[in-house]
Amino acid sequence: MALIVQKYGGTSVGSPERIKHVAQRVARFVAEGHKVVVVVSAMSGETNRLLALAREVAPSPDPRELDVMVSTGEQVTIALVSMALMQLGVKARSYTGGQVRILTDSAFTKARITNIDDANIRGDLDAGFVVVVAGFQGVDEQGNITTLGRGGSDTTGVALAAALAADECQIYTDVDGVYTTDPRIVPEARRLRTVTFEEMLEMASLGSKVLQIRSVEFAGKYKVRLRVLSSFEEGGEGTLITFEEDANMEKAVISGIAFNRDEAKITLLGVPDRPGIAYQILGPIGDANIDVDMIVQNVSHDGLTDFSFTVHRNDYQKAMQILKSVDAHIKSRGVVGDDKIAKVSVVGVGMRSHAGIASTAFRTLAEEGINIQMISTSEIKISIVIDEKYMELAVRVLHRSFQLDQPSA
Amino acid sequence: MALIVQKYGGTSVGSPERIKHVAQRVARFVAEGHKVVVVVSAMSGETNRLLALAREVAPSPDPRELDVMVSTGEQVTIALVSMALMQLGVKARSYTGGQVRILTDSAFTKARITNIDDANIRGDLDAGFVVVVAGFQGVDEQGNITTLGRGGSDTTGVALAAALAADECQIYTDVDGVYTTDPRIVPEARRLRTVTFEEMLEMASLGSKVLQIRSVEFAGKYKVRLRVLSSFEEGGEGTLITFEEDANMEKAVISGIAFNRDEAKITLLGVPDRPGIAYQILGPIGDANIDVDMIVQNVSHDGLTDFSFTVHRNDYQKAMQILKSVDAHIKSRGVVGDDKIAKVSVVGVGMRSHAGIASTAFRTLAEEGINIQMISTSEIKISIVIDEKYMELAVRVLHRSFQLDQPSA
Repeated sequence: MALIVQKYGGTSVGSPERIKHVAQRVARFVAEGHKVVVVVSAMSGETNRLLALAREVAPSPDPRELDVMVSTGEQVTIALVSMALMQLGVKARSYTGGQVRILTDSAFTKARITNIDDANIRGDLDAGFVVVVAGFQGVDEQGNITTLGRGGSDTTGVALAAALAADECQIYTDVDGVYTTDPRIVPEARRLRTVTFEEMLEMASLGSKVLQIRSVEFAGKYKVRLRVLSSFEEGGEGTLITFEEDANMEKAVISGIAFNRDEAKITLLGVPDRPGIAYQILGPIGDANIDVDMIVQNVSHDGLTDFSFTVHRNDYQKAMQILKSVDAHIKSRGVVGDDKIAKVSVVGVGMRSHAGIASTAFRTLAEEGINIQMISTSEIKISIVIDEKYMELAVRVLHRSFQLDQPSA
Repeated sequence: MALIVQKYGGTSVGSPERIKHVAQRVARFVAEGHKVVVVVSAMSGETNRLLALAREVAPSPDPRELDVMVSTGEQVTIALVSMALMQLGVKARSYTGGQVRILTDSAFTKARITNIDDANIRGDLDAGFVVVVAGFQGVDEQGNITTLGRGGSDTTGVALAAALAADECQIYTDVDGVYTTDPRIVPEARRLRTVTFEEMLEMASLGSKVLQIRSVEFAGKYKVRLRVLSSFEEGGEGTLITFEEDANMEKAVISGIAFNRDEAKITLLGVPDRPGIAYQILGPIGDANIDVDMIVQNVSHDGLTDFSFTVHRNDYQKAMQILKSVDAHIKSRGVVGDDKIAKVSVVGVGMRSHAGIASTAFRTLAEEGINIQMISTSEIKISIVIDEKYMELAVRVLHRSFQLDQPSA
């Protein structure tokens, strides 16, 4: 008998039929003697419907009120899933984020979980209930409804699994696991049976979209056993996210090719190369709650250097505006930007002990005539920014070049 | 400068356009220096959409979960109205029933308000905010979401007005006041400038549908100045519900003809006429949370009497079932029912001091050949149950017979 947290995304609960299907799977786990906590997203399309409604009333809706509204999407789903479970004779009870008390900070539309009160849930689990929790939402100290930002339901699932010391957190999606890359771009892409936490973190942050990044961070921090599974297939084992590197000794050097077309690049040309300049540039960006991904600064010439970074495309215009006013003080040679870029990343924990990965990647792209605009590396990944029109090509040739289409040893 | 509670129903907030319209009206009141609390229903059609969704998942959905789901309707509206107000430069903040803390009992889908914590709202009003509250919903002692039953947003409005000692509670609907009867049935129906609380209570309970009955009871109990207005017309004075009979000394004897086609009639034939029998019959009905409206029992013959009462048509089948099992003990001569009835009522506070009202009503119906099935009277009304097919005719002839189409003195 295990305690399992199962998270179902918007597509998995996208219709009454699919909700009944989810209830049947949960009922099977209950019949096997497991305690189950179900975390659900809004039915697919619902969040967008609500956002469109908001924009009809106010072009830039107030964030607090947006959260009040958007959080209703999951609230509808928890009720429907609970009803469907009861229909199967399974005791169930729904909880909004506020009812659990998933406490967050007050950063509306992108709040972070600060604490989870697990008393109610534990009580219900002990009394034989399946507990159905609204993902993506919480409540701040003042009782305001908050949301964790899009994709945040994964985070709710993992955070609950951590708080409850669950045996496993299962993320059900429309894919049956983590792949070496997106099979829609590379048909030969293979499902990974395991992937390390670090690799997953890089894959998620780089846009492989299977899991929301914050949820993987959470899982790593609290050592939550995390598994990605298909909600449309039965009996699959999915991909297990592991935390022990040793278990992967014989793994291939490279696990996958991630990519991302959601970013925009901004460069300050000819910035005076003096201490504090990076903070002067990025401080106001951070203050505006804009997340920065890649940051690249090369050696300077004549006391001047170029400073580049990437932000989400949605934040591009805002970031450009901020930088133009910041630049009044910095007096660079100009602020330029490009939102027609793509980031392609080669990810693999094996990279640490193998030389030559970077050169293989660069050679592969050069052979296809793809120009490299920015490079940044971490211990287990190499990220390359290119013109977005070359993205699919780059992913395909890198996938082949690192032999990811071959079964691993 | 006054403190005003304004309640807008589903049609008044039925589209983004209508919501902006509501925001404009609220903004005008704010500009005049008033403090305003806005109570809103779900956008028209939304509650039915949600109920249909629930029934697709479970034929008889769990009431607790139904409330979790249905309450999202108003939650969406409060956010939209607040956004629309902010768009006009008016400071606004939304509250769900749980956030206000509108405390109710735990009778899901038909909860009753037990207490309102007005601290948050008062704080916001003093800080210059318009407070936008979700009608129809509350939270029980355990933190479960409850709803007050359909039409309950009126009750929320009046209860908030009472808790805040508001100067006036304005109920905006799709009619511009309380009429002598429904103008769709009698085109000569006139709007009443004032109506007494007792008359309104009878009119509402008898199905004139302008106000939900519990809200009128609340208003009477807490002496809330209540006004019914059109949300589609500007500048109308609507109908004021008064509590001082003296103000109505010169009023016409009869204020209006109410009617109702939502009830069904149940009769136990040949019931033993002994103490406690009424309780034996109606106790189990009450235990099943079925509301009983009219109850009629006439004198007995040979120790036997007929016992009749009416329930809402939705409860008819359930009530018949209960009575059949109850009848195993009572051993009446049979349980018969009819759900093709209508109730027509003549209402007027002046009735108390005028004889002959009843006879006028009965003669009027007799002249049209309409058979009377049940009669019940109170101090200010006479209710008559007839075959539902005669309802419109009965309303028209009674309206004319009491000269309600003539301007009052």
